[in-house]
Amino acid sequence: MTQVDVLIVGAGPAGYMLANALSHFGISKVLIIDKRDKRVSAGQADGIQPRTIEIFQGYGLAQRLLAEANYMCMAAMYNPDPNGGGIRCTERLPDITAPDARWPHELTLHQGGIEAIFVDSMRSRGLEVRFSTTVAEMELDQSLVGDPSAHAVKAKLVTTGTDGDQQETQMVQAKFAVGCDGAHSWVRRWMGHEMEGEQTDIIWGVMDGKPQTDFPDWRCKSPVHSEHGSCVVLPRENNSLRLYIQLDSSKGGGGEPGGRVDRSKYRLEDIQESAKQILRPYHITYPEIDWWTIYVIGQRVASAYSKSSRVFIAGDACHTHSPKAGQGANSSMGDTHNLAWKLFLTLKGLSTCHETLLGTYELERRKFAQDLIDFDKEFSSLVSGKPLSETHPEGVSHEKFVEAFTKFGSFSSGIGIRYEAYASGENVLLVPPTVEEQSLAKHVCVGQRVPTSIVIKAGDGRPMELHDTMPTNGSFRVLIWAGDVVEEPKALEAVKVASSVLSGSVKAHTPKGQAMDSVIDILTISTSKTETQFLQYLPLELRLGGDMRGWEKVYCDQPAYGGRTREQIGGKAFEHFGIAKDQGAIIVVRPDGHVSLITSIASPEKVRDYFGRFLKRFT
Amino acid sequence: MTQVDVLIVGAGPAGYMLANALSHFGISKVLIIDKRDKRVSAGQADGIQPRTIEIFQGYGLAQRLLAEANYMCMAAMYNPDPNGGGIRCTERLPDITAPDARWPHELTLHQGGIEAIFVDSMRSRGLEVRFSTTVAEMELDQSLVGDPSAHAVKAKLVTTGTDGDQQETQMVQAKFAVGCDGAHSWVRRWMGHEMEGEQTDIIWGVMDGKPQTDFPDWRCKSPVHSEHGSCVVLPRENNSLRLYIQLDSSKGGGGEPGGRVDRSKYRLEDIQESAKQILRPYHITYPEIDWWTIYVIGQRVASAYSKSSRVFIAGDACHTHSPKAGQGANSSMGDTHNLAWKLFLTLKGLSTCHETLLGTYELERRKFAQDLIDFDKEFSSLVSGKPLSETHPEGVSHEKFVEAFTKFGSFSSGIGIRYEAYASGENVLLVPPTVEEQSLAKHVCVGQRVPTSIVIKAGDGRPMELHDTMPTNGSFRVLIWAGDVVEEPKALEAVKVASSVLSGSVKAHTPKGQAMDSVIDILTISTSKTETQFLQYLPLELRLGGDMRGWEKVYCDQPAYGGRTREQIGGKAFEHFGIAKDQGAIIVVRPDGHVSLITSIASPEKVRDYFGRFLKRFT
Repeated sequence: MTQVDVLIVGAGPAGYMLANALSHFGISKVLIIDKRDKRVSAGQADGIQPRTIEIFQGYGLAQRLLAEANYMCMAAMYNPDPNGGGIRCTERLPDITAPDARWPHELTLHQGGIEAIFVDSMRSRGLEVRFSTTVAEMELDQSLVGDPSAHAVKAKLVTTGTDGDQQETQMVQAKFAVGCDGAHSWVRRWMGHEMEGEQTDIIWGVMDGKPQTDFPDWRCKSPVHSEHGSCVVLPRENNSLRLYIQLDSSKGGGGEPGGRVDRSKYRLEDIQESAKQILRPYHITYPEIDWWTIYVIGQRVASAYSKSSRVFIAGDACHTHSPKAGQGANSSMGDTHNLAWKLFLTLKGLSTCHETLLGTYELERRKFAQDLIDFDKEFSSLVSGKPLSETHPEGVSHEKFVEAFTKFGSFSSGIGIRYEAYASGENVLLVPPTVEEQSLAKHVCVGQRVPTSIVIKAGDGRPMELHDTMPTNGSFRVLIWAGDVVEEPKALEAVKVASSVLSGSVKAHTPKGQAMDSVIDILTISTSKTETQFLQYLPLELRLGGDMRGWEKVYCDQPAYGGRTREQIGGKAFEHFGIAKDQGAIIVVRPDGHVSLITSIASPEKVRDYFGRFLKRFT
Repeated sequence: MTQVDVLIVGAGPAGYMLANALSHFGISKVLIIDKRDKRVSAGQADGIQPRTIEIFQGYGLAQRLLAEANYMCMAAMYNPDPNGGGIRCTERLPDITAPDARWPHELTLHQGGIEAIFVDSMRSRGLEVRFSTTVAEMELDQSLVGDPSAHAVKAKLVTTGTDGDQQETQMVQAKFAVGCDGAHSWVRRWMGHEMEGEQTDIIWGVMDGKPQTDFPDWRCKSPVHSEHGSCVVLPRENNSLRLYIQLDSSKGGGGEPGGRVDRSKYRLEDIQESAKQILRPYHITYPEIDWWTIYVIGQRVASAYSKSSRVFIAGDACHTHSPKAGQGANSSMGDTHNLAWKLFLTLKGLSTCHETLLGTYELERRKFAQDLIDFDKEFSSLVSGKPLSETHPEGVSHEKFVEAFTKFGSFSSGIGIRYEAYASGENVLLVPPTVEEQSLAKHVCVGQRVPTSIVIKAGDGRPMELHDTMPTNGSFRVLIWAGDVVEEPKALEAVKVASSVLSGSVKAHTPKGQAMDSVIDILTISTSKTETQFLQYLPLELRLGGDMRGWEKVYCDQPAYGGRTREQIGGKAFEHFGIAKDQGAIIVVRPDGHVSLITSIASPEKVRDYFGRFLKRFT
């Protein structure tokens, strides 16, 4: 009987994100299986939103993504030419929906390219996907669910040999299992949860390839409303292009009462013929087609996300929606990025209340999925809608579309995703701030991802993104925003008091023999200047208790040395966070980058109490 | 008999840069040999200057360098404490010597780490170093030197087997050979060239390791002048540290008339004991030593760099100097970065005058080496000098040292390196500008590396470093700085005329069947706005003659869309280059990034004539 910590069913974006994150955190007993005999190499989900790029960066994977993907920075809106003869460009505008993001634009890269980044990262730690493998049976021993170290899940796996005939079965015991097995999830059906919501009769075709075209804006995201239907033109890596094309649903039996559109009635030629009609007067041909498919828009979310907080579902197994807002892979990877560190804390025995902790996964991500569906319904109908005209006075006007496009930007970018901090304390991980606390860090929201800004490393003057000082490694961060401890005795005194309380928490929650920044990592950002050797003023506790690596824990909010003077960087972190330089603040950030709490530098006890609520004490 | 295009003797920084560049340009018949049985894994040259980072970026190698190296951004100057008791910090200041550089700071990474980047890059194209191999004999057939395609060099190579006994010999014929075989170069001796200059009796020890220390500025470049001698503290990757320590030369017989200091008289303990004395009152111990050595400062340059422009030397084979200005690996890699594209043009049969073309290598790089020696003499004596005090009124004052440190910055950073554009036309690759031409691009210098600035890609709104639009691939760039071709009919007309002449040059010098940007690549930077679809206004010639990849050749000088508003980027390229928006300019850039000529947008004939001087015509 093989024993693992986590069994992951399905190697798509959700499964890969989870497997990679767990192995990155040092959880070595992970088994990830997939029913396909190799990984996807073309097409499928491909839009990477700004927050997802930041998440990749946290795991050290963004550089390759940024090098291989196409940047999508501009949008061009096309509508019927009032003079007839087809479409024309109404407006070109930034496709920038998240000005606060570190990378404020979308990226496009085929799903195989995205997955290859995970595959190589996992391989460097010895983790590989077991392909051609499915779950045949699963059992959950309810008597064991209270013990996080128990192997409560039993699964029978079946692996098909390369010739397709031979089958091998294996019994596996897992502490936790996660179904990342897509819209038709076996794990979801095993749990008995339903998909709630509707199937529409709106049908779209999607096609990837290298085109020959005179369409002027083929390097912009171009939503096209024409008299012959709608399409979205999406630029892709390596000068390829994706087209989303609305098809005539009547051909597949749409519009009939109670009927369902039959996808099998449509062929590649239907997509190509529609594209030709919609894009007139421009021409497009596809000498090379990489991938194509037909889909009917459905907007549904699973009734629950877990069974006893031991078996979970994530990604398409939880929610389906239209792909046109570029949300598919992003929401799936967001699910397991949220779940991974909670499993990590549980498996490492760091938490006192694993069921409560793991319960926040559904609390946070199911609410997000419902918001996403609501957003998608509204946005999809605008994309699919007929253009406004004399014959269609109820149609979609250019102004209405641009308004929606902009309004939904913050949400669809992922930057605006905010988990609710219930005043009732329902979510143990998020503490709603008082009015006074919120005023200490005006631009920071509990439940949202923490902003970033360029700060200067005190020890060597190196400019760094604040996000890069907090790589995703499973630890919480306490950011102390301090005044000028060199010039202001009061500021120094406040930091000394806070550091004494906080280092008490660090010591209490760190298992013996582990690095002092492995569970709670204290970073200080000060208004002092690097020129003053101010590192020497700070209490040793803020520098890993005197460990020589501790110099990397202290930053200054000042402009970067030198650099091209025309592009001054640094010196705006306090301002960007909305923190007064003479007041300071403490901000706690979860391992997934979301803000837990905001409080005053004079109230370090609030931070101590926060961690005491769910982290185990070792002293 | 094996035939190769280029035989490279020696796999150090110079040899690796050359081998990698040639294979990157598509020269597949390269043989690189080294006498050692494996590559260096610790110590040795390790400082990477700002221009070298830019060069790595040109070959697509900077990301890994930036990820693995230590950033050195700050300097701390130490001098004797006037109150006695040892040294104290006099000043902390930016170690930023090249504010115009894309990365304005130094990097440190051990030589094995630098070389590994080349090794992996070369391996991806099937090129590996042949280790344990030396040249035993070499012959140059003078009757063949006029024919660039002839294998004029014959060499006998000897490879030693792994047991050290077996030897295998091989005869190799090469079109060109380059000795990158260090200060004791076999190739240089074979050519019969002398090293000219002096050996000093100043002796230094250098030591790499992971220290335990209370020295406060161990993450800054810290030159220390003490009553017990001088040292330089250099932070390194992975929290390690390098110390350069001046040793007592009398121990090795220095100071005797005509005597030479004997390095063998010194041991690791001498370095450690000196460090202890110099750094008082601070303490330092080295629980781990990675590497150490002793060297005597010599400042010499070879009398010539080639034999008949068929056999060359580069790197330490050409010049030796003290390592304290962090120039070693940089000047060596700079040599072969300069030579590589000239060999490439010759080997691809693109040049009409290969001897003149290859002759510019010595013309440019020997002059640079001489300047470097002059610089090094002055700087070394300041670093080695006794501190100013009552007993040493002739000593080095803090003010004098800081002044020299700053003055030499631009040169030592590599950004300030400027090859001379002789009015006599002695250097066919550089055209001295007239006063009027210089006024068109006030901040651009012929012979210096072209500046960079952020520009916006017209087709998709993506912000890019101008340097990144000109990756090092062997082609020349013609930068057309155009006015607003959408709003200004005159600006459009000027671009139309220029594009017609320039595209004539492109067609003439591009061999049949090759991409139209493979020899001369035209890029346009305009003051027009991306929102206007101005791409459509430009003549097709400026977009690769209508090839769909041509959209990547056109840029706008405007602020980037969105982005964190606190750090506006883009929109300052004309200003940074000193080009008037209503006037424009044409700038030609060589494949190594150095500026060839500056002229008016109304004088494209000057560009045509420039290329006509050394590039072959194919039509």
